[in-house]
Amino acid sequence: MSVSASAIDAMTALDAGSPDFDSRLQALLDWSEVSDSALEHQVAAIIAAVRDLGDTALLDYSRHFDGAQADSVAGLEISGDALQAALQSLDTDLRAALELAAGRIRDYHERQLAQAPSWSYRDAGGNELGQRVRPITRAGLYVPGGKAAYPSSVLMTAIPARVAGVEELIMVSPAPDGTPNPAVLAAAAIAGVDRVFVIGGAQAIAALAFGTETIPRVDKIVGPGNKYVAEAKRQVFGRVGLDMIAGPSEVLIIADDSANPEWLAADLFSQAEHDENAQALLVSDSAALIGATRAAMARLLDGMPRADIIAASIASRGATIVCNDLAAAVAISNRVAPEHLQLAVADPDALLDDIGSAGAIFCGHYCPEAVGDYAAGPSHVLPTAGTARFSSPLGVYDFQTRSSLLRVGAAAQDIGNATTTIARSERLAAHALSAALRWPDKGDGDA
Amino acid sequence: MSVSASAIDAMTALDAGSPDFDSRLQALLDWSEVSDSALEHQVAAIIAAVRDLGDTALLDYSRHFDGAQADSVAGLEISGDALQAALQSLDTDLRAALELAAGRIRDYHERQLAQAPSWSYRDAGGNELGQRVRPITRAGLYVPGGKAAYPSSVLMTAIPARVAGVEELIMVSPAPDGTPNPAVLAAAAIAGVDRVFVIGGAQAIAALAFGTETIPRVDKIVGPGNKYVAEAKRQVFGRVGLDMIAGPSEVLIIADDSANPEWLAADLFSQAEHDENAQALLVSDSAALIGATRAAMARLLDGMPRADIIAASIASRGATIVCNDLAAAVAISNRVAPEHLQLAVADPDALLDDIGSAGAIFCGHYCPEAVGDYAAGPSHVLPTAGTARFSSPLGVYDFQTRSSLLRVGAAAQDIGNATTTIARSERLAAHALSAALRWPDKGDGDA
Repeated sequence: MSVSASAIDAMTALDAGSPDFDSRLQALLDWSEVSDSALEHQVAAIIAAVRDLGDTALLDYSRHFDGAQADSVAGLEISGDALQAALQSLDTDLRAALELAAGRIRDYHERQLAQAPSWSYRDAGGNELGQRVRPITRAGLYVPGGKAAYPSSVLMTAIPARVAGVEELIMVSPAPDGTPNPAVLAAAAIAGVDRVFVIGGAQAIAALAFGTETIPRVDKIVGPGNKYVAEAKRQVFGRVGLDMIAGPSEVLIIADDSANPEWLAADLFSQAEHDENAQALLVSDSAALIGATRAAMARLLDGMPRADIIAASIASRGATIVCNDLAAAVAISNRVAPEHLQLAVADPDALLDDIGSAGAIFCGHYCPEAVGDYAAGPSHVLPTAGTARFSSPLGVYDFQTRSSLLRVGAAAQDIGNATTTIARSERLAAHALSAALRWPDKGDGDA
Repeated sequence: MSVSASAIDAMTALDAGSPDFDSRLQALLDWSEVSDSALEHQVAAIIAAVRDLGDTALLDYSRHFDGAQADSVAGLEISGDALQAALQSLDTDLRAALELAAGRIRDYHERQLAQAPSWSYRDAGGNELGQRVRPITRAGLYVPGGKAAYPSSVLMTAIPARVAGVEELIMVSPAPDGTPNPAVLAAAAIAGVDRVFVIGGAQAIAALAFGTETIPRVDKIVGPGNKYVAEAKRQVFGRVGLDMIAGPSEVLIIADDSANPEWLAADLFSQAEHDENAQALLVSDSAALIGATRAAMARLLDGMPRADIIAASIASRGATIVCNDLAAAVAISNRVAPEHLQLAVADPDALLDDIGSAGAIFCGHYCPEAVGDYAAGPSHVLPTAGTARFSSPLGVYDFQTRSSLLRVGAAAQDIGNATTTIARSERLAAHALSAALRWPDKGDGDA
């Protein structure tokens, strides 16, 4: 037996009809981060130092953790000229691909923007009520550095912010050797990022949250990072806006006999290659398709550069699940609330209405998660680990705030009376007075 | 000098033109919660016990902390009949006021719902892209119990959830003597809450976040609470959806010479009477108006049942600020990003365009914060303590999730090529394979 075959044999195989299915699925889904009090204290100290000492502390940490050579935080900024130079020297095909992706991401988010304008109405009494929608002023984008570099993540976070109308976009990204990945810088140029600093870790989150002499304080920070970054985001929660703290990524594929097993194998691998904790699940009413897909996985695994990561992910957190019909498959998906849901079936529309929580829904055989990761248009920043139950994809709305607008008029005796009455019942006399002075209660006159 | 006059004399008076204005304003705004590691550990232990032991632990804590007499968690549920009975026996005027408020809150949020429907479009290549908007399945509403009882908060949280289409609304509220406030129960009946449990504190948050044998796990928890509740929400962050963790409440009033000083005094008091940390700020281009308002405050204070709280709030965190013109007043508001912004000026429209972050904007002399707290329509749950920079009022959108919808077709060679190219540059070969199998690259054929 080849290594590949044994890795795929280790992938959990479940039958949705078996009595222990629920508990086995739950065990597979369970994901708990180990809280680490040493990490918490280290991050708290870094945040306090950057908050209190500003640039001095930020520079110290950048030298210590990232080997920065600069003698000031200003020296850690990448100039606009350098961003343009990175774009100019980028491989032509890659530049064209990033620009195609950027155009599509922009188009999608412009539709999103247009769907949620400010609005107001007048009620029967002539009072105006409404909602103002405005961009936040300044956003911070965290882009992980180090071995892996993801220009796609720059596009997927910066473009929704830009479309929302955010005034200033600050990108931070650490670079162990001082020079960020050129494709990441080129993507920042394409997306229209305003300023880029080569800083990272908890110190970068603290700098964005509180501001330093050189780094402007932002209103919201988005983007994934390592455990220091995640812990720092947790600790500044409430001080600054945040996107979700990302957990491991997952895909759930619902497939029927019309699906191509080799394509499904690649799709499952594309999830699994992210990291060992990524989760790839295939649910089908066809045992034959599941068998063929597992065989294709065994065949393809050796050709994958990241075969070790894929094998570890598939063996520990992957599963194929056979069920009686596609309705049962949808019920399983609804329970998982997957980040990515592929409907690799002949008739996706027959399932759509019954599908509940999912970050992104990919319909049909020509719509693998990978096109959503790079080029289709919607952001690839999606709620992971079941948080699609209550969270949404990163979008223009994450870079906007809403304000309620109220214009109650002198004629609103009814609103005034109701305010006075409820305020008195809650024993908030000043609230009652505030209304009663404007609308003396004609009924009892005891305002 | 009377006690009232001295309390108002203690209210900070600032001049926006003075050199130390920025630092004095900042000192007044600064608000930091003291983190309390004993509290953290106590709450962590409660959460762990409820998560692991379910009803048994929840009942123990409810007996211990709230003096519950029931011998099961089921015994802590208030029946639908009891809710209706509370409504039937409510004071007629109060019932009419709550029903008027409920109707207006429903109207406003139905407009909000209608403003953000699901949408999709087809691009030039025939690919469909869109966004599905759906209600979350189950929401939990935390309603503080104890001395103060706020039926208005039930309406302001439950109705947006109901309008969003949330399937099941679970309300929890502690009651030291076992019986929740009848007006709160009546408001639950009016708002259409599905189930009510007399539980509270960190144990109630844990029960909603993880579920117990009797309490269903919810997808999102909203509503304010004491420090145990706030800490518990912080600790379950990421496991369950949350609204913001509320800080002290504030109002900023921009007023000109056309404003009524007595009305403003009542408005400032209506903020200050919430608690000692509440913040009431008056900004005006008229020193005369400020003087008249301070005099009205001194005159009115003694008549307020909560005069002690008002005096403490006004003296420690309140301020009047004189500035050269209304543009300067708007700039101050934008810096504060107040929860409530009143425009008590002759021409609010002249200011609106320049106003930045604010939770709710109250336009004109007949639109005090109090009408928004109770009856105008928009929710009174608003971002506090400057978080309007990045947060929004509680709304229908808080009880909805969005899913991206993608339906890329076989003809999407361009998307396929871009996906393959970018994935290769990021060294994610399985992603590239997933696209290249579907759209073999006609250019280089090396998929």
